[in-house]
Amino acid sequence: MAQTDKKTIILFSGDFDKVLAAFVIANGAAAMGDDVTMFFTFWGLNVLRRDRRTATPGKGPLQRMFAVMMPRGPKKLSLSHMNFAGAGPVLMRKMMRSVNVMSIDEMMATAKEQGIKMIACTMSMDVMGLRREELIDGLEYAGVATYLGEADEANVNLFI
Amino acid sequence: MAQTDKKTIILFSGDFDKVLAAFVIANGAAAMGDDVTMFFTFWGLNVLRRDRRTATPGKGPLQRMFAVMMPRGPKKLSLSHMNFAGAGPVLMRKMMRSVNVMSIDEMMATAKEQGIKMIACTMSMDVMGLRREELIDGLEYAGVATYLGEADEANVNLFI
Amino acid sequence: MAQTDKKTIILFSGDFDKVLAAFVIANGAAAMGDDVTMFFTFWGLNVLRRDRRTATPGKGPLQRMFAVMMPRGPKKLSLSHMNFAGAGPVLMRKMMRSVNVMSIDEMMATAKEQGIKMIACTMSMDVMGLRREELIDGLEYAGVATYLGEADEANVNLFI
Repeated sequence: MAQTDKKTIILFSGDFDKVLAAFVIANGAAAMGDDVTMFFTFWGLNVLRRDRRTATPGKGPLQRMFAVMMPRGPKKLSLSHMNFAGAGPVLMRKMMRSVNVMSIDEMMATAKEQGIKMIACTMSMDVMGLRREELIDGLEYAGVATYLGEADEANVNLFI
Repeated sequence: MAQTDKKTIILFSGDFDKVLAAFVIANGAAAMGDDVTMFFTFWGLNVLRRDRRTATPGKGPLQRMFAVMMPRGPKKLSLSHMNFAGAGPVLMRKMMRSVNVMSIDEMMATAKEQGIKMIACTMSMDVMGLRREELIDGLEYAGVATYLGEADEANVNLFI
Repeated sequence: MAQTDKKTIILFSGDFDKVLAAFVIANGAAAMGDDVTMFFTFWGLNVLRRDRRTATPGKGPLQRMFAVMMPRGPKKLSLSHMNFAGAGPVLMRKMMRSVNVMSIDEMMATAKEQGIKMIACTMSMDVMGLRREELIDGLEYAGVATYLGEADEANVNLFI
C-alpha cells in the first residue's frame, strides 16, 4: 500500500495531562522520522501563551477577562482530574521528574528541534481574543482548511 | 495512492466548545467537497434535541429524570471549562458574533444544506432513554456497525 | 485501494461513559473481523486495575496517594457529566441493564475473547506509580513507539 506516515494532532484541550499525551505522541512520531503537524485550538492555545503579561491595547472588556482567566503557558495548566486547586499538576510534575520524563516545556523545545509544525487556529484566537504577540515564537497561523489539507496527507489524525 | 477524502466525526461530547469544533471541521471538509458523516452519541445527542419538551408517554422515572436534566439543543449547552453556571456560553456566543463566527444553530443548518450525514446512535438513545420524537428532523438512526462501515471508507476519523 | 481494516484506540480517559464508548467501538470492530489494539494510558489505566488492594512495597508517598485516590477497575469509574458523587454511574448501569447493554466488565471479557490486544502504557504507569501486579492479567506493556507502529498499520485511529 502506498502510504504516508505523516501524523496530525488537533490539540483542543489545555489540560496538563492531555497536553502531555499530545507531545509524547508527536515527539515519538517525529523521532521515528514522521512528519508531524500540531494544530492548537481553543484551550489548547493556552499552551502557546507567553508566561508574561503582554500589552494588548484595543482589546474589549470580554477579551481582557478571558485573557486574565486563561492560563499562560505550560506551567499554568490544570489536570483534567485530581487538580486540587493546582496541587495535582505540582505532584504530577514531581512524579514525572522522579521517573525521568521530560517536562512539557522540554517537550515543546524538543518538538521545535524536531521540526514539528505548530499551527495556531486563527478562528479560535479571534473568538477568544488572543493576539499573535501573546503567543510564543515559531508558530504558523491558519484555519480549518489548512488543518484539513494536512490531515488529508496523514495516516494518523487525532483529536485530543 | 488511491485515496478517499471522506471524513467521519464521532461527537460524543455535548460541551458547547467541542460541538463548535466538530461543526467547524465538518462544515470545512464539506465545503472542500468531502463526504462527511457525523455520528452523535451520548452527550453529543443533546445537540440534536428539540428545544421544547416533547410528550413521551411510557418512559420510566430514570429516563424522565435524564431527559429533564440533560440540555435540550445547542442553545442549552455548557462550556467544558469556564462555564460559570451558564455565563461562559453567553460570553462565548457574544465573542463569536463580534468576530462573525456562525452560531452552532447556523452551523447545523449549514451542515444540513451541505449534505452532511448526521447519524444518531441508537444504543446511546436506548441507554439514555431518548426517543426519535425528541430529536430534530433529518437524522439517520444507526449503531456502531454503521459507524465502522463509514469510518472504513474515510481517511480522517475523529472522536470529539 | 489496498487497505487495512485494523483499528487502534488510545483510551486516555477513565470516565465511565468514555470507557463504555471505547469498548463498544473496539468490540464492534472485532466482531466485524478487524484487528483491534487498545492502548491504555493515564486515567484509562484505572480500567485495568484489579478491584482489590495489592501490596506494593517500596512505593513512595506520592505514588501511594495516587494509588489510593484513583478508582480501581471498571466498577469504580465516574461519569464525565452528571456523576452526582457516584449516583450517576449507578443509574447509568441500571439503564444499561434495562435495555440489555453489556456492563463494562462483560465488554472487557468479550474484548479478551475476541483477541483485542490491550496494551498498558508503561510511561504513564511510571508517572502514576502503577505496577504490573496492580493490573489485570492478559495485558501487554509498551510505550508510544509500539502504539505508533500499530497505528501505522491501521485505518481508524481514535483518541478517547
